[in-house]
Amino acid sequence: MKAEIIAIGTEILLGDIVNSNAQYLAQELASLGIDMYYQQVVGDNEKRIIHAFDEAYSRSDIIITTGGLGPTEDDLTKEVAAKYFNKALFQDRDSIEKIKDYFKFRERKMTENNLKQGLIPEGAAIINNDNGTAPGVIIEENNKIMIILPGPPKEMKPMFEETVRPYLQGKTDSLLISKMIKILGIGESAVAEEIKDLLDAQTNPTIAPYAKDTGVVLRVTAKASNKEEALNLIEPIENEIISRLGENVYATEDISIEEAVAKLLIEKKLTISTAESCTGGMIASTLINYPGISEVFLEGAVTYSNAAKHNRLGVNNETLDKYGAVSEETAREMAIGIANTAKTDVSIITTGIAGPEGGTEEKPVGLVYVGVYVQGKVKVQRCIFKGNRSKIRLQATITGLDMLRRILINKNI
Amino acid sequence: MKAEIIAIGTEILLGDIVNSNAQYLAQELASLGIDMYYQQVVGDNEKRIIHAFDEAYSRSDIIITTGGLGPTEDDLTKEVAAKYFNKALFQDRDSIEKIKDYFKFRERKMTENNLKQGLIPEGAAIINNDNGTAPGVIIEENNKIMIILPGPPKEMKPMFEETVRPYLQGKTDSLLISKMIKILGIGESAVAEEIKDLLDAQTNPTIAPYAKDTGVVLRVTAKASNKEEALNLIEPIENEIISRLGENVYATEDISIEEAVAKLLIEKKLTISTAESCTGGMIASTLINYPGISEVFLEGAVTYSNAAKHNRLGVNNETLDKYGAVSEETAREMAIGIANTAKTDVSIITTGIAGPEGGTEEKPVGLVYVGVYVQGKVKVQRCIFKGNRSKIRLQATITGLDMLRRILINKNI
Repeated sequence: MKAEIIAIGTEILLGDIVNSNAQYLAQELASLGIDMYYQQVVGDNEKRIIHAFDEAYSRSDIIITTGGLGPTEDDLTKEVAAKYFNKALFQDRDSIEKIKDYFKFRERKMTENNLKQGLIPEGAAIINNDNGTAPGVIIEENNKIMIILPGPPKEMKPMFEETVRPYLQGKTDSLLISKMIKILGIGESAVAEEIKDLLDAQTNPTIAPYAKDTGVVLRVTAKASNKEEALNLIEPIENEIISRLGENVYATEDISIEEAVAKLLIEKKLTISTAESCTGGMIASTLINYPGISEVFLEGAVTYSNAAKHNRLGVNNETLDKYGAVSEETAREMAIGIANTAKTDVSIITTGIAGPEGGTEEKPVGLVYVGVYVQGKVKVQRCIFKGNRSKIRLQATITGLDMLRRILINKNI
Repeated sequence: MKAEIIAIGTEILLGDIVNSNAQYLAQELASLGIDMYYQQVVGDNEKRIIHAFDEAYSRSDIIITTGGLGPTEDDLTKEVAAKYFNKALFQDRDSIEKIKDYFKFRERKMTENNLKQGLIPEGAAIINNDNGTAPGVIIEENNKIMIILPGPPKEMKPMFEETVRPYLQGKTDSLLISKMIKILGIGESAVAEEIKDLLDAQTNPTIAPYAKDTGVVLRVTAKASNKEEALNLIEPIENEIISRLGENVYATEDISIEEAVAKLLIEKKLTISTAESCTGGMIASTLINYPGISEVFLEGAVTYSNAAKHNRLGVNNETLDKYGAVSEETAREMAIGIANTAKTDVSIITTGIAGPEGGTEEKPVGLVYVGVYVQGKVKVQRCIFKGNRSKIRLQATITGLDMLRRILINKNI
């Protein structure tokens, strides 16, 4: 079965918003084992919407649309779909009641044009919308399916999960299950070389590599008739990849590096503090993404000025004068200093030049000393990161977290 | 002139990444006055790519593709384009040299398959890529244009700015200039109501409102034959909007709230510190996005535990016991405490419950006290934010920055 996503909305064509719905739906369809070979974006224009429908049905069985269900004149999707399938539009009484209630509950004024949101094409199934006024619809006609959903993700996603997903599951007989292998410390090309034979030989499961700012990901996907069978197909491939990449693999599920580190700290009952200069709070902020972190994260410092490094962390003024704020010596004292001050088992620190100004020949933009302290021992790594200010800060953050991870899993520093 | 964007890449069809390139290109094309009525996404498959080209040229003059320029076998775009236009592929010597240099500079190993990235269709113009190994190309044939760009945004965007934009500008005879009006403290619907008559009457300039996590934006766009004319059309509309929205407008250029605040602090020579609990470093990290910030940002604290609030900021244990960490009293002491400890003129602080755990009936998830200290005076605002952990932290961060901004521009607290 082949599906196609059509996003309807001039705001996407103007670049006012990014089409995040397409990504969500693509992931969901892939996980249902439904193939998708094309996506389209078209504006709020009847003729072009109809053309998009024609084009899609010439090559796909299912169309999923997002957008165009609002109360304004620009919102055309249901009207055009009804015309396309030659169906009359009826006021659905339940939908009208829900729309009225929605406004009453929020003490907001309903306008006449909200009523048109309750129009349903004859014979269509209604998809409940608990987060907005526009119900969705499913139209089945001559082996073609059209699923019409609202644009706002907070309305569309629950509707997909509660109604559309079970509906589509009933239509398919196979399932695609993916496992993510998350990698740091080695680039995408090197990963591809390391597993070249596996990539070349892949059939089922497939192995898809891609690079993100936060590391390399391998997605191993198996098609089978049930979840257990799919996982059995994945397992040997996953094990082979891990045996080759070693500790560069930081997770075999789709979690972030901060979650992996947070879990290690909680498991080992180690408290942590951070002292950051150029990363400016990003490491602390990233760790605190993880909801359980309050068990182990006690304190962070953003010691942007030399005075703060001295007053807050106890870095010696002599060290700052002799070696400078961006130096291995200062990094070392920062790591020990914050751990002592905050009384934690572990600390991560950074001091560096995030740019765009501030670089010299000896200490260029992108130079960052990343330090980790674990129960009395300190490791400092001198790094040169490329890219703009944001990229340098992010890479320093990821490097600090990954340095700690490796020390913790190897139980040595 | 009509353009169409074709994103080539199976990873988009699988939902591995969101198609942010489409949004960027859409905005750029709109600003150039080039119409776009369709967008397509297609996978790494020769037949389907050719079909997408055919479809696009049946209705558009310009195709811009992103993706498919990598070194692997899946990367087909240039090869398929050359076939489509019936051109031979040549090794471009400069491109090959640049590819070799790219690897040498980064001390990484080049592989054989990187060489294919230097293949250029006969007669095509080369688009330099300073951030990656794949040059882009522009093909002109029989009144049809194809612009082929890499997928990674950090490569594609500079290439568009430096080469493609001037190229396209030369092809159009009118210009679209936009000004962004950035708004905080009032929601999208309320903004729309406030300027309803302007929205209804708009012709040239147009006014496009949209809501982001970081505030509401009004984009005022004028079409004219030169930049000055366009700005003259925009000015009265912009002034009218500002007179109605008042201090809710934090900028009339596309800058972030942190940049607006940083500039105010630097202009007024006020030093700043931060003390954060639930936002966990996000406010410091956000301010430090702005490169000039070291002039004024001295220190930040992430006082996640009660002990840290007491030891680091001097918050009284009695206050913590009596009112709790998440309280107006604690917030007040945090604001004064960090400003005194760090010896700054100004501070921003947060203490709250970011969730998903930790809420009670009296103090629910989303409750955050945001505090600002300015030269001896303190203001604390009790906020209830909606959404998940990330959203709550982000809204608290934005609120803290905007609170400070309003105090600084009003010169009172």
